[in-house]
Amino acid sequence: MSAAPRARDLGFACGNLPAGALNSIADVPGVLVGHRTLIDGDIRTGVTAIVPHGGNLYREKPIAAVHVLNGFGKSAGLVQVEELGTLETPILLTNTLSVGTCCTALVRHAIEQNPDIGRETATVNPVVFECNDGYLNDIQALAVTEAHARAALANASSQFAVGSVGAGCGMSTFGFKGGIGTSSRRLDLDGRHYHLGVLVLSNFGRSGDLRLPDGRSVSPSTLDGRSTEKGSIIIVAATDIPLSDRQIKRVIRRSGVGLARLGSFWGHGSGDIALGFTTANILSHDEKAALVGLHVLNEDRIDLLFEAMADATQEAVLDALLAAGSMTGRSGHQRPGLFDTLKSLSPEA
Amino acid sequence: MSAAPRARDLGFACGNLPAGALNSIADVPGVLVGHRTLIDGDIRTGVTAIVPHGGNLYREKPIAAVHVLNGFGKSAGLVQVEELGTLETPILLTNTLSVGTCCTALVRHAIEQNPDIGRETATVNPVVFECNDGYLNDIQALAVTEAHARAALANASSQFAVGSVGAGCGMSTFGFKGGIGTSSRRLDLDGRHYHLGVLVLSNFGRSGDLRLPDGRSVSPSTLDGRSTEKGSIIIVAATDIPLSDRQIKRVIRRSGVGLARLGSFWGHGSGDIALGFTTANILSHDEKAALVGLHVLNEDRIDLLFEAMADATQEAVLDALLAAGSMTGRSGHQRPGLFDTLKSLSPEA
Amino acid sequence: MSAAPRARDLGFACGNLPAGALNSIADVPGVLVGHRTLIDGDIRTGVTAIVPHGGNLYREKPIAAVHVLNGFGKSAGLVQVEELGTLETPILLTNTLSVGTCCTALVRHAIEQNPDIGRETATVNPVVFECNDGYLNDIQALAVTEAHARAALANASSQFAVGSVGAGCGMSTFGFKGGIGTSSRRLDLDGRHYHLGVLVLSNFGRSGDLRLPDGRSVSPSTLDGRSTEKGSIIIVAATDIPLSDRQIKRVIRRSGVGLARLGSFWGHGSGDIALGFTTANILSHDEKAALVGLHVLNEDRIDLLFEAMADATQEAVLDALLAAGSMTGRSGHQRPGLFDTLKSLSPEA
Amino acid sequence: MSAAPRARDLGFACGNLPAGALNSIADVPGVLVGHRTLIDGDIRTGVTAIVPHGGNLYREKPIAAVHVLNGFGKSAGLVQVEELGTLETPILLTNTLSVGTCCTALVRHAIEQNPDIGRETATVNPVVFECNDGYLNDIQALAVTEAHARAALANASSQFAVGSVGAGCGMSTFGFKGGIGTSSRRLDLDGRHYHLGVLVLSNFGRSGDLRLPDGRSVSPSTLDGRSTEKGSIIIVAATDIPLSDRQIKRVIRRSGVGLARLGSFWGHGSGDIALGFTTANILSHDEKAALVGLHVLNEDRIDLLFEAMADATQEAVLDALLAAGSMTGRSGHQRPGLFDTLKSLSPEA
Repeated sequence: MSAAPRARDLGFACGNLPAGALNSIADVPGVLVGHRTLIDGDIRTGVTAIVPHGGNLYREKPIAAVHVLNGFGKSAGLVQVEELGTLETPILLTNTLSVGTCCTALVRHAIEQNPDIGRETATVNPVVFECNDGYLNDIQALAVTEAHARAALANASSQFAVGSVGAGCGMSTFGFKGGIGTSSRRLDLDGRHYHLGVLVLSNFGRSGDLRLPDGRSVSPSTLDGRSTEKGSIIIVAATDIPLSDRQIKRVIRRSGVGLARLGSFWGHGSGDIALGFTTANILSHDEKAALVGLHVLNEDRIDLLFEAMADATQEAVLDALLAAGSMTGRSGHQRPGLFDTLKSLSPEA
Repeated sequence: MSAAPRARDLGFACGNLPAGALNSIADVPGVLVGHRTLIDGDIRTGVTAIVPHGGNLYREKPIAAVHVLNGFGKSAGLVQVEELGTLETPILLTNTLSVGTCCTALVRHAIEQNPDIGRETATVNPVVFECNDGYLNDIQALAVTEAHARAALANASSQFAVGSVGAGCGMSTFGFKGGIGTSSRRLDLDGRHYHLGVLVLSNFGRSGDLRLPDGRSVSPSTLDGRSTEKGSIIIVAATDIPLSDRQIKRVIRRSGVGLARLGSFWGHGSGDIALGFTTANILSHDEKAALVGLHVLNEDRIDLLFEAMADATQEAVLDALLAAGSMTGRSGHQRPGLFDTLKSLSPEA
Repeated sequence: MSAAPRARDLGFACGNLPAGALNSIADVPGVLVGHRTLIDGDIRTGVTAIVPHGGNLYREKPIAAVHVLNGFGKSAGLVQVEELGTLETPILLTNTLSVGTCCTALVRHAIEQNPDIGRETATVNPVVFECNDGYLNDIQALAVTEAHARAALANASSQFAVGSVGAGCGMSTFGFKGGIGTSSRRLDLDGRHYHLGVLVLSNFGRSGDLRLPDGRSVSPSTLDGRSTEKGSIIIVAATDIPLSDRQIKRVIRRSGVGLARLGSFWGHGSGDIALGFTTANILSHDEKAALVGLHVLNEDRIDLLFEAMADATQEAVLDALLAAGSMTGRSGHQRPGLFDTLKSLSPEA
Repeated sequence: MSAAPRARDLGFACGNLPAGALNSIADVPGVLVGHRTLIDGDIRTGVTAIVPHGGNLYREKPIAAVHVLNGFGKSAGLVQVEELGTLETPILLTNTLSVGTCCTALVRHAIEQNPDIGRETATVNPVVFECNDGYLNDIQALAVTEAHARAALANASSQFAVGSVGAGCGMSTFGFKGGIGTSSRRLDLDGRHYHLGVLVLSNFGRSGDLRLPDGRSVSPSTLDGRSTEKGSIIIVAATDIPLSDRQIKRVIRRSGVGLARLGSFWGHGSGDIALGFTTANILSHDEKAALVGLHVLNEDRIDLLFEAMADATQEAVLDALLAAGSMTGRSGHQRPGLFDTLKSLSPEA
């Protein structure tokens, strides 16, 4: 994990459930995250890859689900996840106008691993999410290349940085500098430990609306930039609890609770989308048997996951906010870091 | 099974898959159907009960799903089935204005079997579907009582009548007399026999639009009555193949294929709704373990179920049409029977 | 309005937008609310009617939409609202097991006003919502009759009580006594005043999770009763801003923000459902022209409604909580009133 | 229109409603279609562009809707159409693995016309649909470039070819050569003429399942290639009747009726997706007024559009089948043309 401060270390833990050891989506065994950050002239953007497991995802598909909180967004691949309840590529996060390039990168990556794609077997469904970093980044430059996407995949590790990295490089949140954040919760079921981990690409929220867990409101000192909520947030959740796709969908819907606690009302112009997957239910592309055995959660226990999802989403956004330092970007546009702002408010703290 | 002719016996088998022994939803082991038919003065209505298994449904909930083909309808109980993917009462079919009464009947029935409902445990979700039999029935009379609903439940059997019985008593289809019909398909997976069974409450289709499997169009000799498609159809599917709720939803969506083959374009005024359940995945209301094991279908095999669903839906409607004799009802309104009409067209047949 | 204290008068206003004159759903011109409260022995229940306008609703249908936040609920009539985007009866709220009876009451009410229903014209779609009041009420008694429902309709007025009245009589919220609450916001568009009003039937939230707008957590002194979130909340929104059904759906989805701010994570066992309608777009049942003119909102302005919806939902729940006094009900079960509890916490306040 | 035979000229008209003058989606005034076809070595693919009107689509957005019949597909842009009910780019059709490239092409096209995108105003939502042409095309080659997509846009005209052109170049349907087809219906409302036009990218259907409107079944002489339904179909509908997005969604859902009549049961592996738009309701990106006036259809008339949608979809697929000649593609794979096959069946015809 990077040297950037983590929200929890600064006293911004959310809720009552214990965090995982890394307080990260990578507390779910096998989940890896990689970044490729682009900073050059007016460019402040990048790609973040979330890899559900280290094997061949096209061959071994995790059960998954998506939920659209507010669909003012341009993400790709949701239709098939909704229909089939599975994921078959890594998940890429990037800026809005680079979705196409990242789709193509995932297609080539899948073909390399699976030369039968589009020949002896079906095609492949790339899953790419996006937020609009146009305030700090020259998004019209379409700076992200397939090679950048591949680099993010190649960098994937259980140890990864948060803040202004990868796809989070040029993002904004509640008028502050946003970016990538993560958090996890340890969940105990019948005496066994499991985890639910969340990673966010945070780029949402109206300046002035941020509310900290202790009830304080914090605003950037200058309310420049966009006064309306035109950003977006992508929430990716992973768990090693065996769930059905319907159960995952119910769990990830609670990401909206975390956003609301932070002060958002899920603004019109914000593409707020959640995806979840379980590493405990994997369906084989090459399955031969007619019936497949799996486990699902006794739904009477699902409140534990709902609470974890709400708490971890809230904390992951704070994690992004607190790790991301102040930044100057395109045309001299500026976003203050929340940590810097809080320090200036209470200098002796 | 009643003495009424069955569609298949008259040469109206649909598709290439084999039917079950009864060619009925009751080919799925455990599924029972009961009717209570009301004919008196201007009353032509009733109740049909579909009982997924002989045990306590509130305690042992089948995995289930609903799909709304066209939602101009007043059915009850769909919200919870959609959220939780389970069924916890028998399914009642009746006329549109009697849904409330049948809901109450199911509530009392569930409380009798489960005195903890609404006290030590949750409440209960009654599932009631309806069509509008107002052309032949004095629907404003609200003739159906809770006792009638209970009688339909009490009559439930694997042997049941089709045609103008139960909820089907006063229904119309493509300008002919409609009602209850059923059909099934035997499906073989990995060397084992399973069944998919369908029961319809058929009350849809514009006069003149009916198309028989051999391509013939057949119209009632007098196109009286409603010229627009203002009816509805309820399609209930059962199977003993283990499926997830998402898989069931995909399967029952194909009921729309059967309706289209019959000549319908799913008219505006028609409440066309499908519900499916599997008897092979039952979730216990009192489950104590955190995780539950179950089987689902290898989705690569699901085309077999799609085809069976389309075929069985088409044939079940024909089954209703051919079993239902000509009827005179409210205010002298008349619906010819399809069988009578076909005989008059080819008298020597 | 009743003599019960209102949340706003006690310092619990939510958000920055101005409330309407009544701070009630009845700030939307034409909207009326009526109650019938049942308290007798172990009975603590009732019916609340929301009447969108004073005319014949079957003939003049408001554009409407529903949104299911969490579908563990038994409400009726949602399928048709979803398909057609209109409402054609008043809305009734009651306890879970009385939905059937209230449906039948609405059917008879509609037939009285429209003798052509089910004869020369279509049938009618009754809309009934529910929460489970079984902790304080003997819900198995099915105490609500059609006459009670009719009485609630007959009592409808722009002046109505909040708290433990009508359907709210036996409800609970965050371990306190819940019930009916309301709030509104005045919204200015192009120099003209409009309103968005919300009424809730509040019966949700886990004991201990309630968070007041000032950040305080408040718990009942004894955490008896249900420790898990097994209640529900129904949120009804009205506006005189012309909206499409899609726009209404987007607006009412923000009720979830209000619930989250109150401390809820939308628990598994809670049927959390919202319905909204506009009195500014009414479709005639007897329309003869092929095309109908109407206005919709410039969607760039919709954040104003989102914010109002979140704020008014939050405040309406607090309104219910603060108006509802402590109550003892079935089997001696008790729920403290929030107002009583707050007074005991700061006796001199 | 090309010299290829049209289904209607060959006696395959569907339904009873009159076709438009061109029997094409371009019967809707302003709608243009362009192709870029790629045939080279093992390449059999391309791009088809559907341009809803000749103006700046980002500035003047048609009201639109999508409906997923079966979501085994990789199309892009649906989330935002679903949320906002508008379209803001032309629609591109291509092969499955070229969706990313076409998205990027649409992004650059929009930026050229609107230099404020991603700077002073929001980003842009490219809409790209796809089918898998991998049987005849070397889909792994990713042969489609941004320049090809731009060429398809530049070629857009009210006169366009059908059959094996543009995105349809390498597609298959019921074991025959498929591709692009179109059809329209003239609809009269209150004495005024309107049109509903449909264009399909047809690549679906199991060999042996095709059923012609006269009831005949036709199979390719050799049932080589894929025996299961692994293709897809994209259905794009245009109309100049003013509709709401909900009404469009209801209309385009009836594309499934047309597919069912052709013999399909909407196979598991088929991404069957419909998009519709109206040129009669255009929302301005730069609207300043708070309220916008528009017209919608009196929903009692919508059966006319349902019937037209079912008929035109069915006929558009036949149009593709009959215009597409036999083709040999990748690795010598072959698809016979339906017209050639029918001629060989009745040589003197």
